Amino acid sequence: MTQTSEQARLDQFYADVAGYDLKPLWPIAQELMPLEPKPRTVPWLWRWKTLRELAERSGELITIDRGGDRRVLSLANPGLDGAPYATSTLWGAVQYLNPGEHAAAHRHTPGAIRFVLEGDGVYTTVDGDACDMHPGDLVLTPRLQPVQARNRSERRYPAKGLLPAGTSAQPGPGHSPLLAYRWADTDAALDALLEDDGGPMASLEFTDPTTGRPVMPTMACEMHRVLPGRRTTASRKVGSSVLVVHRGSGASVINGTRLEWGPGDMLAVPSWAAVDHEATEPSDLFAITDAPVLKALGLYREATLEQPQEITGSFPG
Amino acid sequence: MTQTSEQARLDQFYADVAGYDLKPLWPIAQELMPLEPKPRTVPWLWRWKTLRELAERSGELITIDRGGDRRVLSLANPGLDGAPYATSTLWGAVQYLNPGEHAAAHRHTPGAIRFVLEGDGVYTTVDGDACDMHPGDLVLTPRLQPVQARNRSERRYPAKGLLPAGTSAQPGPGHSPLLAYRWADTDAALDALLEDDGGPMASLEFTDPTTGRPVMPTMACEMHRVLPGRRTTASRKVGSSVLVVHRGSGASVINGTRLEWGPGDMLAVPSWAAVDHEATEPSDLFAITDAPVLKALGLYREATLEQPQEITGSFPG
Amino acid sequence: MTQTSEQARLDQFYADVAGYDLKPLWPIAQELMPLEPKPRTVPWLWRWKTLRELAERSGELITIDRGGDRRVLSLANPGLDGAPYATSTLWGAVQYLNPGEHAAAHRHTPGAIRFVLEGDGVYTTVDGDACDMHPGDLVLTPRLQPVQARNRSERRYPAKGLLPAGTSAQPGPGHSPLLAYRWADTDAALDALLEDDGGPMASLEFTDPTTGRPVMPTMACEMHRVLPGRRTTASRKVGSSVLVVHRGSGASVINGTRLEWGPGDMLAVPSWAAVDHEATEPSDLFAITDAPVLKALGLYREATLEQPQEITGSFPG
Amino acid sequence: MTQTSEQARLDQFYADVAGYDLKPLWPIAQELMPLEPKPRTVPWLWRWKTLRELAERSGELITIDRGGDRRVLSLANPGLDGAPYATSTLWGAVQYLNPGEHAAAHRHTPGAIRFVLEGDGVYTTVDGDACDMHPGDLVLTPRLQPVQARNRSERRYPAKGLLPAGTSAQPGPGHSPLLAYRWADTDAALDALLEDDGGPMASLEFTDPTTGRPVMPTMACEMHRVLPGRRTTASRKVGSSVLVVHRGSGASVINGTRLEWGPGDMLAVPSWAAVDHEATEPSDLFAITDAPVLKALGLYREATLEQPQEITGSFPG
Repeated sequence: MTQTSEQARLDQFYADVAGYDLKPLWPIAQELMPLEPKPRTVPWLWRWKTLRELAERSGELITIDRGGDRRVLSLANPGLDGAPYATSTLWGAVQYLNPGEHAAAHRHTPGAIRFVLEGDGVYTTVDGDACDMHPGDLVLTPRLQPVQARNRSERRYPAKGLLPAGTSAQPGPGHSPLLAYRWADTDAALDALLEDDGGPMASLEFTDPTTGRPVMPTMACEMHRVLPGRRTTASRKVGSSVLVVHRGSGASVINGTRLEWGPGDMLAVPSWAAVDHEATEPSDLFAITDAPVLKALGLYREATLEQPQEITGSFPG
Repeated sequence: MTQTSEQARLDQFYADVAGYDLKPLWPIAQELMPLEPKPRTVPWLWRWKTLRELAERSGELITIDRGGDRRVLSLANPGLDGAPYATSTLWGAVQYLNPGEHAAAHRHTPGAIRFVLEGDGVYTTVDGDACDMHPGDLVLTPRLQPVQARNRSERRYPAKGLLPAGTSAQPGPGHSPLLAYRWADTDAALDALLEDDGGPMASLEFTDPTTGRPVMPTMACEMHRVLPGRRTTASRKVGSSVLVVHRGSGASVINGTRLEWGPGDMLAVPSWAAVDHEATEPSDLFAITDAPVLKALGLYREATLEQPQEITGSFPG
Repeated sequence: MTQTSEQARLDQFYADVAGYDLKPLWPIAQELMPLEPKPRTVPWLWRWKTLRELAERSGELITIDRGGDRRVLSLANPGLDGAPYATSTLWGAVQYLNPGEHAAAHRHTPGAIRFVLEGDGVYTTVDGDACDMHPGDLVLTPRLQPVQARNRSERRYPAKGLLPAGTSAQPGPGHSPLLAYRWADTDAALDALLEDDGGPMASLEFTDPTTGRPVMPTMACEMHRVLPGRRTTASRKVGSSVLVVHRGSGASVINGTRLEWGPGDMLAVPSWAAVDHEATEPSDLFAITDAPVLKALGLYREATLEQPQEITGSFPG
Repeated sequence: MTQTSEQARLDQFYADVAGYDLKPLWPIAQELMPLEPKPRTVPWLWRWKTLRELAERSGELITIDRGGDRRVLSLANPGLDGAPYATSTLWGAVQYLNPGEHAAAHRHTPGAIRFVLEGDGVYTTVDGDACDMHPGDLVLTPRLQPVQARNRSERRYPAKGLLPAGTSAQPGPGHSPLLAYRWADTDAALDALLEDDGGPMASLEFTDPTTGRPVMPTMACEMHRVLPGRRTTASRKVGSSVLVVHRGSGASVINGTRLEWGPGDMLAVPSWAAVDHEATEPSDLFAITDAPVLKALGLYREATLEQPQEITGSFPG
């Protein structure tokens, strides 16, 4: 057989394969099953100054009849081709309410949380419980309903290790019945952890008090306190995360790129990215991650880097 | 065959059975497998006045060389033939230390807890962590070791729902890593529960903050706040319990017998006993039960009585 | 303010939002959070006649130096823009080996299974255990390694309910240690189920004998036996699946579209699609689904339709 | 104070303590909390020849009106003061039915199993399912009810790793839904295990096919095949067990005492006893243990002895 007719037969074969809604694996096997995660998510930083200014302008321009009851700006990671996601698995956004406004009640299956950046006299209603919201608070919003009580979940789960008798550990997946985690508790807890462990970083996870599991089956929330003086040990984790700077300033190195941050800034961290932090003053980083999904599926891994990361660039470049 | 020889053969048969270390089931089947629990434990009450006076005398008489490092008086339920147990599954006791004395470190496999009745400036060392003890505190003592830190477990588990990151829910049985549950937290938590649920009783369980499970795999600890005004609904539970009156006064009806109690009194409650309480002033009853054992084995049951118990006697009779 | 300048300000606002890597939520909220799953996967059917013919041609044309050690044709669902996936979460493919060839050992993190359509004298090596493969067998291939034993996993888990002593239920996610599920067992099991339950369908799940859980943490495998005579009750499930006709012939209705199938045909079923089957002779449908993922995340739902589906089209259209 | 008056005060103190239903701990602390289990159960052996002869005599003498519907001889361990228990936690017995007789249906909360020693044409009805019984079979009898089906549980759980679709792993404690474990399966499974692991002993646990857990929440059942030639490695386990020789002959050494056994003999093994076996022909030992209870409570331990046990006596002495 001549080389030409061989090539013709191959061409015909590939055309037939495509025509029957099939794809040959051999040209794409490496790409389909890489040795380590190859996320499309890129390390990114959104400045609070920008977010706040645009949010204010939306408050002015996007009236209720223009959709203002969902006046929310979504982080859109540049690696994701214009999709409105902070990372390939996490959605992150800033919501802006004018004084006197309230966001219409709605339901959603995806789990959601609110981390309060600014404002006062605000509350969100979850399962009929109106939860007051203050800066630094974490408030779960698995679904929304008419008000029937106020801060009730905190009265039912009032102190560490104390549960209403008969509240058994939940057998299956579900969200925490405690809906609000207050900044004062978080602040004191980070201080207590640092008293024994030293620095430069202490990390807390917000958990369901009835099970010790993440606050939602699909998302984990953490708070990291970073003390100034030296870079934290770099590590990698399967799964992506979004960081929000609650307080302080410093810089993170993500896969070699250095990103400087200050209060309210938000960062996207891709899966398996090397990450370390260095604070210039005592700083608190709120984090939301998809680790519970990866753990549930047996795919979670983490590793500590033996050497500090080399810094190869800065953001913006 | 004559009736006599028949009887002789039967007698010989029963003698042979006994001689070969066997027992016929048919005469004892009902007794072995009753329709409901038939505990030997009887409802009982130990007066704090008596306990305290005998404990003080033991402090004076039982010097270290007479065994004073284990200067402990065990509750001995009269139904248990002199065994040193409060109920068939629970051990309860009063320990007395003179000023300046310390109980020698020891290890034990059985889980143990301490509930502090009186005293100040006392601590107990658990897993190397010296836990301060104050009245109303619950302190776990799964095992004892040399002091390495002070109140460390409370710093590691400092607030409800907040865990050190990476503390995963324990896969198997074990005790709570939080070792001290402070009265101030318990007191506030009971108030918060009553705010929503009304009275006459609110009940808390002390739990492992990393799992929401009982503080020990074999024992559960609870605190019940009873407000005066009316009797609580009577209920039955498989499993026995010991109650300690932390505060207040009132009376409990256990299987029809009325027992009046005041501060420091201790009560034994048999398995499946009908129980209700009535307080004459706001009262707090600490309870320890074997419910986790019965739940682990699938044998736990509870029932609420539809009618108030008839009072058929009083204690002491 | 004039309408023009208002529109200019809005235009400028939207441009600024896009320029800072943000997306307004209000225009896309409905699309992002639909009331029910809106899968891009479409119901589809790949004919065995086509698959087999193309596989044979690949065996002839795709020599080892052209990538023939991965001589695999992937099902490419037309709804997924050319991606090589059968559904949005499942990969399905046909592998072809010439006599005497063997596929090179490789490792992959994603779970994989093989369901044997044709051939004899074939084996696959998993965790060092060479598993013989015959038509109708399900063989797990979580990862591949050099041969150390032959069919060892079946000797360690030799009969229902019998485990090597000391094999405790696995605490976390993992794959079944039993690697091969033989057709003879499956066949007999389906007959036994039908003896009690009647028809027209009996369904088995292949499970980990040490835990009763799905064979892999991310995928469940089932076999459905459909008897001729009447349509099965239609149902919907969150999560997609791929069906392979092991034996028999008939038709399935998926979201109103009727697809006729025979031996070896493969079908893609989108999430939440209404599905029923009708066989023209006793038929066995092997199914692989992503239900374990959705269950692990608390997102699984299923529903039975009260009315038979109306047939609104046929495939190919 | 004189020694006499001191002693008088002590005597008065101990009298008062006893009079108030209290016990001093210091004289009994060692006995109450030993360093290792101090079971009252003694190693013991009941000969099948004796059991069978007495069972036959009971069949003749104990007619229905004398209690013959519970014609059962319980093993009564000599260490337990005449109580009808094989060990401190396990009840073991031989039931005898004359041809044509049937034991009256009854209910019991304690879990029970039957291991068939002799006989044919016998069945037991569990949850309405009449389970045929043959020598070597293990049949669960958690509770008894009128017949509604025959060997149905085996049809629902027909082969290893195959479950009816939708049978999810049970969240809490419960018994296996598979009620009969047939000797033919057990026999083949032991052969398969020995093929890989070599001898002198292979051990299987009978488990719930839907969870991989013990057949009952309170009892585990095992079968040990011992090949002749050498003694097995000695080991200790917290928890007691009863062994029944299904087949073969040999000897076991329990805490240094050598007990020779043959078909049908039954042995009591105390908690934490050192145990090894040596067979004179291929032998099968059925075992029932309380290990699930101890595991559920976190109290289970086991240890392998580094040296063979010294034989210090024989049974009977």
